[in-house]
Amino acid sequence: MDARSLLAEFLGTALLVFFAVGTAVLAVDFVGALGIALAFGLVLLALVYAFGPISGCHVNPAVTLGFLVARRIDGRTALGYWVAQLLGGVLGAAVLFLVARQVPGLVTEGRFGSNGYGDRSDVGITLGGAFLAEVVLTFLLVLVVLSVTHRLAALHFAGLAIGMALAVVHLIGIPLTGTSVNPARSLGPALFAGADALSQLWLFFLAPLVGGVLAALVHPFIHEQEFKGHVDDVEAATPAT
Amino acid sequence: MDARSLLAEFLGTALLVFFAVGTAVLAVDFVGALGIALAFGLVLLALVYAFGPISGCHVNPAVTLGFLVARRIDGRTALGYWVAQLLGGVLGAAVLFLVARQVPGLVTEGRFGSNGYGDRSDVGITLGGAFLAEVVLTFLLVLVVLSVTHRLAALHFAGLAIGMALAVVHLIGIPLTGTSVNPARSLGPALFAGADALSQLWLFFLAPLVGGVLAALVHPFIHEQEFKGHVDDVEAATPAT
Amino acid sequence: MDARSLLAEFLGTALLVFFAVGTAVLAVDFVGALGIALAFGLVLLALVYAFGPISGCHVNPAVTLGFLVARRIDGRTALGYWVAQLLGGVLGAAVLFLVARQVPGLVTEGRFGSNGYGDRSDVGITLGGAFLAEVVLTFLLVLVVLSVTHRLAALHFAGLAIGMALAVVHLIGIPLTGTSVNPARSLGPALFAGADALSQLWLFFLAPLVGGVLAALVHPFIHEQEFKGHVDDVEAATPAT
Amino acid sequence: MDARSLLAEFLGTALLVFFAVGTAVLAVDFVGALGIALAFGLVLLALVYAFGPISGCHVNPAVTLGFLVARRIDGRTALGYWVAQLLGGVLGAAVLFLVARQVPGLVTEGRFGSNGYGDRSDVGITLGGAFLAEVVLTFLLVLVVLSVTHRLAALHFAGLAIGMALAVVHLIGIPLTGTSVNPARSLGPALFAGADALSQLWLFFLAPLVGGVLAALVHPFIHEQEFKGHVDDVEAATPAT
Repeated sequence: MDARSLLAEFLGTALLVFFAVGTAVLAVDFVGALGIALAFGLVLLALVYAFGPISGCHVNPAVTLGFLVARRIDGRTALGYWVAQLLGGVLGAAVLFLVARQVPGLVTEGRFGSNGYGDRSDVGITLGGAFLAEVVLTFLLVLVVLSVTHRLAALHFAGLAIGMALAVVHLIGIPLTGTSVNPARSLGPALFAGADALSQLWLFFLAPLVGGVLAALVHPFIHEQEFKGHVDDVEAATPAT
Repeated sequence: MDARSLLAEFLGTALLVFFAVGTAVLAVDFVGALGIALAFGLVLLALVYAFGPISGCHVNPAVTLGFLVARRIDGRTALGYWVAQLLGGVLGAAVLFLVARQVPGLVTEGRFGSNGYGDRSDVGITLGGAFLAEVVLTFLLVLVVLSVTHRLAALHFAGLAIGMALAVVHLIGIPLTGTSVNPARSLGPALFAGADALSQLWLFFLAPLVGGVLAALVHPFIHEQEFKGHVDDVEAATPAT
Repeated sequence: MDARSLLAEFLGTALLVFFAVGTAVLAVDFVGALGIALAFGLVLLALVYAFGPISGCHVNPAVTLGFLVARRIDGRTALGYWVAQLLGGVLGAAVLFLVARQVPGLVTEGRFGSNGYGDRSDVGITLGGAFLAEVVLTFLLVLVVLSVTHRLAALHFAGLAIGMALAVVHLIGIPLTGTSVNPARSLGPALFAGADALSQLWLFFLAPLVGGVLAALVHPFIHEQEFKGHVDDVEAATPAT
Repeated sequence: MDARSLLAEFLGTALLVFFAVGTAVLAVDFVGALGIALAFGLVLLALVYAFGPISGCHVNPAVTLGFLVARRIDGRTALGYWVAQLLGGVLGAAVLFLVARQVPGLVTEGRFGSNGYGDRSDVGITLGGAFLAEVVLTFLLVLVVLSVTHRLAALHFAGLAIGMALAVVHLIGIPLTGTSVNPARSLGPALFAGADALSQLWLFFLAPLVGGVLAALVHPFIHEQEFKGHVDDVEAATPAT
């Protein structure tokens, strides 16, 4: 863990939230749920190619937890990443709020790209359904991240695969919960959306983290555990993307 | 064939069905047929980069049959893959069913992402038309898979090409049959969709398998047959993706 | 020029027409013009990775003419490619016609995915406008093909760049002419669409060929002419994609 | 700086404007804002793979300014690029104007793909909001360009990442300002759109340039400054894409 990595996680998460949540807030009437899903996937793709060589470009506490459980990073690095990601998510949402306030008639309270279940879900999914969905969606995302950054994986294709995996979890999940799979993506918008969003925020922290842990536990049954290299060395462990 | 490969085929097929059929079941009103087609293509792209180095990531009995006819895998491996794929497809549909039950008002009986012809097709395509379409669609998919995993192919691009080929067969085929090209993708949803879907299931087993065999028979006229390596060794024969 | 190359051009063009024109004929009400544009781009992407190492995967007489003018292939090879491409386009349209006939109520006469101008254009573009548009659209496509298969280009990315270029020329051109940029793509559907389509077919042969020649003439001012290798040897001259 | 680079920047910018702005002008009713965003992203992707090895394929004065501030190119090269890009943007818009005039009933005055704020914005964003949005959007684009062409970046993936970054800034920005992030993209269409567009043009020069400078200033805090090679040598400094 060095300052460059933390800055990459901080700035990367801020940009992810501004651009992808921002497409939901500012452009949903123009590009629809399909456009939002692609915004999430394509901005992450670009960020992984931009910041992957520096920090691994997790920009997601659930991914970082998966890397910790898989013993690819140490606890101190994970802690630093988490703080950077959460702060970055808040910054991204704050800048988005500033822009949204300059659009006459745009309501920023209530939804503002926050995640939700029950009456805050487009299809009214239950709490249990939302939890299950977020676990499965994050499971796919983190399993893909762990797999495509594995020593056996096709070099340099991690960014493409990870970005497209994020697009897919949004294609299926936007109607359900708005798709979190990322506590840092959920925190920032919830702060600006108000009390209702904040009261549901726990689920979008807990379920993605559970999904990330499950992926890290299943991963070694598919990919042979790598003992080569310094597994506690973030430089060696992060993807070469 | 080892346990890791079987697990990869099982889990990969389960994730393909959950996410891509799930987009059709849960999100069609939000992302449309275009979103469903992209969900199929992008989740397969991610899965090929994730599991390709382990099992080749067929996640489709028609692809496995094509590899068997092309003598890239042996019959015992193919049998193991088929069982893993069919069970995976059922698991994916079962988890999807659990989530869908948590969406108030969502009808899971009747369609549930199953394939169909006649009055179960969006455009009412005839049985013969459905059969022909599924043969041609699977022919493209399996021919692309065999070609882009050939020794001459651009290393590492198999996942991109295969995923995009699956997206294309859905762009043209969703109105016709919902696009199977994959018996394992058809089995799981049909079990939950009910008797009408099950009565048409035979076509979505037979036609994709015919398409896969045709592709394997045409392929050596385009690509020189490779006799190097252990063609019956799944490790050597599966794509390096 | 060998039999494998000719078969690749024949089958590749047939698959391009069946899947991309087929999306326009069978699925336009489901995926829209955006879905059609992506079908063209993504099926070409897959085909270039599948058949590029065999024939270069031109699947388009205007591309072949560009390669001839750029002295990357000889006249005899170009002639063989052209015949294979035109026959392939007819085969693809014929199989599409067979499938379309199995969809009750689908009108196959009149449009059937053929290109057009004047009252056969969605926006009524004039003959002169259609000609200019087809020249510029083909100019981009062929200039991209020549550039990304040049010795300096990023190895293996030709399929991605060429496929996406074809998607773009459809995004802008579908409302204008339905986008040809490829005489073989225009011929087959016109044969099944009837007399009106056939009477306009000359433009969709001439304008793409003019655009392809222009691209080949401009290309050496941007990329240094390569004199290395056997420029008349199709094996050496076709992209390594 | 040589003649080939200048021609690549000139022609590349012309093609970017013709195809991407052209999709907005000619095809918005067919492909929507999502199609326009993809047109921008995909044509840039293709152009980077085509012209990247020649000039770096900036095709955008804000990118060139970022490279100048980052000391990757010298002032004389930047000046040449700027002139080539601005002239290219005008050429692209002029050819688009010629085509658009051949579409009966198409109004070319007023909008013609130009950028705008206030009553010239689809959502009526204020001047300050438009300025802030353009700064942030250009910041992402130029930061991605600088990062993915850095020595540490995955070789050859610059075109994919840059193209997708441009798609994302359009997904969020089309409703706001039509998305400039590129003075050369704004100039040409404004000349044909008329006085109202020209009166707002200053913002779409100034804000993207500010965003580009900010990206160049932040970039060294994430990526270690490279002192190897000839930083003032455009041949060595431009991406190897």
